[in-house]
Amino acid sequence: MAEIEAKLEKLGLALPGPLVLPPGTKMPISFVRITGNHAYVSGHVPQEQDGSIAEPMGKLGKELTVAQGYEAAKLVALSMLGSLKRELGDLDRVTKWLKVLGMVNSDPEFKETPQVINGFSELIVELYGQEVGTHARSAVGMAVLPGNVPVEIEAEAEISL
Amino acid sequence: MAEIEAKLEKLGLALPGPLVLPPGTKMPISFVRITGNHAYVSGHVPQEQDGSIAEPMGKLGKELTVAQGYEAAKLVALSMLGSLKRELGDLDRVTKWLKVLGMVNSDPEFKETPQVINGFSELIVELYGQEVGTHARSAVGMAVLPGNVPVEIEAEAEISL
Amino acid sequence: MAEIEAKLEKLGLALPGPLVLPPGTKMPISFVRITGNHAYVSGHVPQEQDGSIAEPMGKLGKELTVAQGYEAAKLVALSMLGSLKRELGDLDRVTKWLKVLGMVNSDPEFKETPQVINGFSELIVELYGQEVGTHARSAVGMAVLPGNVPVEIEAEAEISL
Repeated sequence: MAEIEAKLEKLGLALPGPLVLPPGTKMPISFVRITGNHAYVSGHVPQEQDGSIAEPMGKLGKELTVAQGYEAAKLVALSMLGSLKRELGDLDRVTKWLKVLGMVNSDPEFKETPQVINGFSELIVELYGQEVGTHARSAVGMAVLPGNVPVEIEAEAEISL
Repeated sequence: MAEIEAKLEKLGLALPGPLVLPPGTKMPISFVRITGNHAYVSGHVPQEQDGSIAEPMGKLGKELTVAQGYEAAKLVALSMLGSLKRELGDLDRVTKWLKVLGMVNSDPEFKETPQVINGFSELIVELYGQEVGTHARSAVGMAVLPGNVPVEIEAEAEISL
Repeated sequence: MAEIEAKLEKLGLALPGPLVLPPGTKMPISFVRITGNHAYVSGHVPQEQDGSIAEPMGKLGKELTVAQGYEAAKLVALSMLGSLKRELGDLDRVTKWLKVLGMVNSDPEFKETPQVINGFSELIVELYGQEVGTHARSAVGMAVLPGNVPVEIEAEAEISL
């Protein structure tokens, strides 16, 4: 079994299915766009196992706590790994995480955006190890996110061909 | 005539002139920055044919409707194509759209940011076709955008040399 | 002495030490992530010489003026150059600034985000010259930034090996 998926299984984590959009919405985009050995990964949101967008919705510092945001960011990592698995076939093909933009749906008084996005970064580093998994990052507060999800994260990574 | 420009003409669409900044403002930046076969495109805003920033200004979910935002995002695509044409000489030189960050000037309760940025993405895919035109994307809500424009979009694309 | 550092000294500017995080916070990330001749630079914030996060905190258009924001953006350039110096050894190794995302902690009515981020861009162009220093850029308003800092900026640059 591939190494990253074996680690996910050991952690009791499973990847969700493809994103199921709310009725009436469309997304004319690629979840993963590849050029050479470089993958651009669209902004991903927390998903349930069936691919639907995960509850709870809402803003950090208003409806949601840092712990809930951290959990949502961890779910985003799984959503993103699900897309990468479907695109690459094998998650071990990610050879270097490069860059992450972590976006938190924030009340204007909420100040702990990095602590939320750590839910994503810590899982990626746990799975891939420090050398491959670490990444440049910004973790910032948005006025709102699509459908009022608490966290959306996009990334760039190097892949093996 | 170049293929993309022929398609624009068939759609009755024209590219605006270079951005005309409001008096007293300066932008010490490059609208398109190229390294190798990779173009980084600055955040673009809706423009009139004369290059001035297009009305209406305002926030989605407050002053503006989704339909107005969609129209603004379509104008941003034309602004960006205008810059690419001036930089590359020929829009057919864009060989692969890679990544788009779609930023919507949003009231904190506005939730339909993807439906707004679709105005950009659908035009790019219509012009370039699915294979070249599709892209990784995030479509998110900002507290505010320069001069209170409703939409600003930045991008990365692969180009032929 | 290296050219860029000589220019900094001539301008009376010094680079701050490594970021000192507030107690109880952690940042499981890389400030600079390199692949080939490409450096991804994490979102940086204004720092004091000792590496601590610089005052004043707050939002543009609420607690802070454009002049204060410009100054904060200039400090962010120094923070980023500090990280690049520690990673690359020599700031002259940056051979082409490519792309900057300038994020301003903004009241929803604040409209002058580019004038704030100019504090970053103008210093980079002054130090590196127009050809190397200019960059694609977006300069936009966030609901909030980590710890309520006024400005956070991330970047990509080409480096010599």
